[in-house]
Amino acid sequence: MRSPFLGELMGTFVMIVLGGGVVAGVLLKKTKAEDGNATGKWMVITTAWAFAVLCGIFTAQLFGSADAHLNPAFTLAFAIKGGEFNKLIPYVMAQILGAFLGGVCVWLFYFPHWGVTEDQGAKLAIFATGPAIRMPLANLFCEFLATFVLVIVAGGMSSKLVLTTGAAAGLSPLLVSCLVWGVGLSLGSTTGYAINPARDLGPRLAHALMPIAGKGSSDWAYAWVPILGPCAGAALAGYVLRLLNA
Amino acid sequence: MRSPFLGELMGTFVMIVLGGGVVAGVLLKKTKAEDGNATGKWMVITTAWAFAVLCGIFTAQLFGSADAHLNPAFTLAFAIKGGEFNKLIPYVMAQILGAFLGGVCVWLFYFPHWGVTEDQGAKLAIFATGPAIRMPLANLFCEFLATFVLVIVAGGMSSKLVLTTGAAAGLSPLLVSCLVWGVGLSLGSTTGYAINPARDLGPRLAHALMPIAGKGSSDWAYAWVPILGPCAGAALAGYVLRLLNA
Amino acid sequence: MRSPFLGELMGTFVMIVLGGGVVAGVLLKKTKAEDGNATGKWMVITTAWAFAVLCGIFTAQLFGSADAHLNPAFTLAFAIKGGEFNKLIPYVMAQILGAFLGGVCVWLFYFPHWGVTEDQGAKLAIFATGPAIRMPLANLFCEFLATFVLVIVAGGMSSKLVLTTGAAAGLSPLLVSCLVWGVGLSLGSTTGYAINPARDLGPRLAHALMPIAGKGSSDWAYAWVPILGPCAGAALAGYVLRLLNA
Amino acid sequence: MRSPFLGELMGTFVMIVLGGGVVAGVLLKKTKAEDGNATGKWMVITTAWAFAVLCGIFTAQLFGSADAHLNPAFTLAFAIKGGEFNKLIPYVMAQILGAFLGGVCVWLFYFPHWGVTEDQGAKLAIFATGPAIRMPLANLFCEFLATFVLVIVAGGMSSKLVLTTGAAAGLSPLLVSCLVWGVGLSLGSTTGYAINPARDLGPRLAHALMPIAGKGSSDWAYAWVPILGPCAGAALAGYVLRLLNA
Repeated sequence: MRSPFLGELMGTFVMIVLGGGVVAGVLLKKTKAEDGNATGKWMVITTAWAFAVLCGIFTAQLFGSADAHLNPAFTLAFAIKGGEFNKLIPYVMAQILGAFLGGVCVWLFYFPHWGVTEDQGAKLAIFATGPAIRMPLANLFCEFLATFVLVIVAGGMSSKLVLTTGAAAGLSPLLVSCLVWGVGLSLGSTTGYAINPARDLGPRLAHALMPIAGKGSSDWAYAWVPILGPCAGAALAGYVLRLLNA
Repeated sequence: MRSPFLGELMGTFVMIVLGGGVVAGVLLKKTKAEDGNATGKWMVITTAWAFAVLCGIFTAQLFGSADAHLNPAFTLAFAIKGGEFNKLIPYVMAQILGAFLGGVCVWLFYFPHWGVTEDQGAKLAIFATGPAIRMPLANLFCEFLATFVLVIVAGGMSSKLVLTTGAAAGLSPLLVSCLVWGVGLSLGSTTGYAINPARDLGPRLAHALMPIAGKGSSDWAYAWVPILGPCAGAALAGYVLRLLNA
Repeated sequence: MRSPFLGELMGTFVMIVLGGGVVAGVLLKKTKAEDGNATGKWMVITTAWAFAVLCGIFTAQLFGSADAHLNPAFTLAFAIKGGEFNKLIPYVMAQILGAFLGGVCVWLFYFPHWGVTEDQGAKLAIFATGPAIRMPLANLFCEFLATFVLVIVAGGMSSKLVLTTGAAAGLSPLLVSCLVWGVGLSLGSTTGYAINPARDLGPRLAHALMPIAGKGSSDWAYAWVPILGPCAGAALAGYVLRLLNA
Repeated sequence: MRSPFLGELMGTFVMIVLGGGVVAGVLLKKTKAEDGNATGKWMVITTAWAFAVLCGIFTAQLFGSADAHLNPAFTLAFAIKGGEFNKLIPYVMAQILGAFLGGVCVWLFYFPHWGVTEDQGAKLAIFATGPAIRMPLANLFCEFLATFVLVIVAGGMSSKLVLTTGAAAGLSPLLVSCLVWGVGLSLGSTTGYAINPARDLGPRLAHALMPIAGKGSSDWAYAWVPILGPCAGAALAGYVLRLLNA
């Protein structure tokens, strides 16, 4: 039953259930967390995404993916680093499918809250990222740089070149979790930090296909940014890791 | 003096004292933490519950329960996983009794604050969970899914199948603590995340039986949801862990 | 130069500089953190106190106290547990002296801010704890119970009886830090959680003796509560740890 | 390709991208995090800076600096401790250059947001620190003491004298991260806690040289405080660590 495909699928599914869930919790009306200001919500969202990734990693490994990438950008970066691309297609398919199912699950989890929420932009934001100021090249640069930092630091956290690595002691998922927390807090507030093409595309598909009460546009015009930006940032980071022989 | 029964009882007691305590701290009037918005309170509550579970785990092990379940849903899940149900009744009795005593203690700890607080719903919320929007099947699904995620990820964190497990290095309680933090932030704001039948039933009994100043209904009509939902989610998770031979 | 006395003194000094510092940062006027609501300030204060203890522990060990108690309640509890009281007087003297010097340092650190702040109660709160609702027996019970939980869980975290202890891997200070975070969030909002007689008495002396601009009463009428309550809670916890042979 | 110079440069670059980024995220207009109060923003900023340092450490080690100082104050302190000053000039040059490039990158990352933000003080605060109340000697004391605490505790965290050190298990970066979190929360709200001359000087240069839309003065009159204060605090701490033979 266990397999890398199932692991990536289940891990990304759990990550999106938790990551989409927290955005729904602070943006949908009549939840126990929604009455607050943007800064407080940002703290809640970024903290929860850190642990969403933590939980996704353990789920992925439990169901058979020792890599626990959960993110096409990571799969691409490590493919470029190692020069082997055979995992790319199955992993990315599993990640997008898991993210889609996670998006569906968030819709069901918050079922009574969609009808009582008017803001269509808020409903989309639960599934897919969007820019604070729409300006495609600037948005692309944000996703590019945030993903570059994410992959470089994650590469460092598990590199044999790094003296203080906690990998041997099982610290890796916790360290990656702190990394995601930090990238979200610091580099997330311009585009909503997709930093992961599957995290954006899968739930955006769920938003488009599911009969969500009072939903608006799925904003497909922006959908290429959180795919291209993270892939470019990850590709460069993978190439740097290769050069470093990390 | 040490025994698994005493361990589960004392661990659940400490967990409820801390977990009920934080809700009292932000909902009762004239505390040092109460003047804020819902999002800020949600951050405080979910953070504190993470550490309430951490403290409960160490207390349970200190008093004799190496398992440190603190939660009938965990006891059920691991019974199904392992095919042995002999711990189920004593553990669950200890957990409910510990949770009841914890609820009593929260009442005493915040003694001067009950009389100065009018909101009866807030007083109940300190002891028992309740839905943001009352819709039993949807509420049941929330408790089911949140508990399924909780048990699956916790199962992964301690599984021999997982490469990055920190169990050997003593990281498990910290990892479980982060898991509870994440599930609370992401999946807690619809029903208040019981994800533990004893956590809800024990303190609800305390609310019903103690002479709390100005209390209202104990809302027994909802009490089956945070019992059935978590048990169903845990049962499925336990079955999946068994299939995986985790 | 290194000694247990110097270690307890320097560790408590650093803990109070950081712990008093955060309260000053959110209560004094014209700081970069002061404009917010009580719940948000509570999150800031409790988080910072967790790391204040973490920093105090490493400082204490660096300067020669392997115990790193930083708290007469811990020294008392472990004396009762082990049946040896010879450390009690020197440790407590060092802790109170360190806390006093820490209080003086907080005064100097926030020097320009005392004059621009009117609230005399806020100024005292930076040095010493005070009750949200003044009711001595209830306040005493809060300090008693919070300290009991603190010492029992800390005892569990370092006990040979506990399977998941991270002591061997150097996790202890981090775990104690999370414990202090949790106790503060959950059991701190009624009395301000002294849970440490030196933490309250030392800085209260600094408040009384230093020429703080526009200060009010040092509220000595309350000063016995954060001494007696923590000592009683710690004594009971120490006795329980002894019974458990923890 | 890897070298200590490149490591310090890249590590400081990543640290400033993340650390400057979070301040931009809460101070610039029309981001997803900016609508909140000062206390909530302080929580976001201090949390993100903790992880900015964590990420900087791993980046520095990945690119060749096993020391991962990222801060001239650390380089100075350890030079004084060890009596060897040969690393001082190359490390400090790399740190300032990395911090300058990080500042440039923050400007580019938040490109669309500078024009929509009026507050010139907020724009400067993203690059360089400034006093809450301008009073140079008091500000200098703040930077001195905060850096002294930072270096002493960091010294303790990696000292052979400390029993609970997590260095062997790879915990060091996480512990230093918590230390930075704590120092920021507790001692940061008077001057904005430079506690690192490069962190202030490098991005201040970027602020002065880059054509940032609607920028004001770079406040060079204050620039000596976050250089002299941290260096003095670090020098004293380094001397104490030397005396302790830590």
